Amino acid sequence: MTTINPYLKRIPERKTYSVGEYVSGILEGNVAILSQAVTLIESAKQEHQLLAQQIIEKCLPYSGNSVRIGITGVPGAGKSSMIDTFGMYLIGEGRKVAVLAIDPSSERSKGSILGDKTRMEALSHEKNAFIRPSPSAGSLGGVARKTHDTVVLCEAAGYDTIIIETVGVGQSETAVHSMVDFFLLIQLTGTGDELQGIKRGIMEMADGIIINKADGDNLQKAQIAAVNFRNILHLFQPAESGKTPAVLTCSKYNAQGIKEVWNMIHEHITFTKANGYFDRKRNKQAKYRLYESLNNQLHDVFYNHPKIAKLLPDMEQKVLNNELTSFRAAQQLIEQLFNYELRITNYE
Amino acid sequence: MTTINPYLKRIPERKTYSVGEYVSGILEGNVAILSQAVTLIESAKQEHQLLAQQIIEKCLPYSGNSVRIGITGVPGAGKSSMIDTFGMYLIGEGRKVAVLAIDPSSERSKGSILGDKTRMEALSHEKNAFIRPSPSAGSLGGVARKTHDTVVLCEAAGYDTIIIETVGVGQSETAVHSMVDFFLLIQLTGTGDELQGIKRGIMEMADGIIINKADGDNLQKAQIAAVNFRNILHLFQPAESGKTPAVLTCSKYNAQGIKEVWNMIHEHITFTKANGYFDRKRNKQAKYRLYESLNNQLHDVFYNHPKIAKLLPDMEQKVLNNELTSFRAAQQLIEQLFNYELRITNYE
Repeated sequence: MTTINPYLKRIPERKTYSVGEYVSGILEGNVAILSQAVTLIESAKQEHQLLAQQIIEKCLPYSGNSVRIGITGVPGAGKSSMIDTFGMYLIGEGRKVAVLAIDPSSERSKGSILGDKTRMEALSHEKNAFIRPSPSAGSLGGVARKTHDTVVLCEAAGYDTIIIETVGVGQSETAVHSMVDFFLLIQLTGTGDELQGIKRGIMEMADGIIINKADGDNLQKAQIAAVNFRNILHLFQPAESGKTPAVLTCSKYNAQGIKEVWNMIHEHITFTKANGYFDRKRNKQAKYRLYESLNNQLHDVFYNHPKIAKLLPDMEQKVLNNELTSFRAAQQLIEQLFNYELRITNYE
Repeated sequence: MTTINPYLKRIPERKTYSVGEYVSGILEGNVAILSQAVTLIESAKQEHQLLAQQIIEKCLPYSGNSVRIGITGVPGAGKSSMIDTFGMYLIGEGRKVAVLAIDPSSERSKGSILGDKTRMEALSHEKNAFIRPSPSAGSLGGVARKTHDTVVLCEAAGYDTIIIETVGVGQSETAVHSMVDFFLLIQLTGTGDELQGIKRGIMEMADGIIINKADGDNLQKAQIAAVNFRNILHLFQPAESGKTPAVLTCSKYNAQGIKEVWNMIHEHITFTKANGYFDRKRNKQAKYRLYESLNNQLHDVFYNHPKIAKLLPDMEQKVLNNELTSFRAAQQLIEQLFNYELRITNYE
């Protein structure tokens, strides 16, 4: 008797494309090919990465023309419903919307905050919407880079609005903030307990705040909350963008206030493009990514270098035995690879 | 008429010692030589650093035998008075006490939280006490390394109790925590407003908490606060050390509760030496310092390398122009220095 692997039949047959085929498929807006390219980006295999990097590089000239929006808020703030309603509004306005997510904490739940596409019921059936769950594994830095690479491909595929969702409880907001043009914080009514859940630093990153679930009995409370938030924002330093964050109320019912959310974002983009902040920020973000990549690769190359890998355990032991200071041990290891005269200028 | 520089006469004449003279001076407990060696550690000049590293290396075998205590608390918690009283108690017990500080935020105040030695009035006149203000300039990492190097010299000079003070409002507690055997949090009465000033993460790092200024009208409030803190600590995960942090009350008047503070620390050290945590933690701290040094030096050597310094601006521009991905730009820069086949295993 032969046992049949029950998973075998679930694996869909996939055509292998060349770099050129991937790129032209993406530029034509072929969602299947776009999806497959994103899978390459998320893959840990070296051959996939090499392929992905070539695809991204060829797509780069076609990227950058979207509005990149980051959305954060504590669990339960209604992010998914809001994105669903907001995305449908944008599509009604003739836009193409990609929804991505960063959630490195999702390892626990073995999935993604967007894993369940049914949470964006309407949007998931729209041909002008591309919804991609968060890559579930890896460090925040790695996940952030993959998400940015995915943004590049989505833009090349013609998506003019990119929404990146994250949960406002960890470090991932900083990562999202470093790759978007507008950072939107979704809050619920009240400024007491609800404020505790969200970190002050996140409030300071926000370009706009919306008080969600402003409907029914909650409407008045939401309006009071909006006033409170506006007062709190006045305590902060002026925003770097030159524009004080707006505070709006909205509800998924009848898409109440959704149009105003888009107006707020659109005004912010227009304003910051006019005063130069938009470009300055995008440049700063690109530099940040370059140095992140550089430092990560430098560490990988250094620590995986056969000489270093061989000597490191001995050096560790010498430091533990008080035979060598950590500074000298580090110096001796580095001299193994950099055999010109060391000129470390920064001695602090 | 010749103008006389009024500062000239204030500069004390200093003998220049050899490494051997520094080391034997330190081992003899010569405070003047110890002070001068610490000045070398804190110097930004390369020749001073080279000299300092040689001195530290020769002192290493004589280091490690002290009890290293970190003390933190919000400004106004009475850290200095407490250290003064506590230090005098320890000296009465026949111990030798060194008091150091980490306060990278002190750049604003152009000095150090320990700059005014009169804040430790009694201790500053004791021959068995060595008080050293925080090095005022530099990054937290740099300041932390210098403080650890100073600990090594102090231990070699016979100080058996090292107290490292920090202000409990920033990142410096983590640095102090990474170099001490016992981390003490000084609190005032009350658990409401006072708790807001101190971060939750700091509470979780504490091996012990004392409610300070437990005297006069404040005594009963302090005792209630101690009970409250004990209850809060029960909500935390069990301490890694295996020992639940004790909460004590104390006052500088009549050194009330000061003996108990030392008993608490002594018990903790005995307990963690017995269960192996003490050595595990010291080893972990040493490894952490090694990797900090390694990464700092690696970055310095890489970014100061003539090839990289020359190519980096071009690469930056190519990334900003969307001609190159940050990943590929980083790869091309790294290939300049590592001309063997790159095997980057970590692609995330």
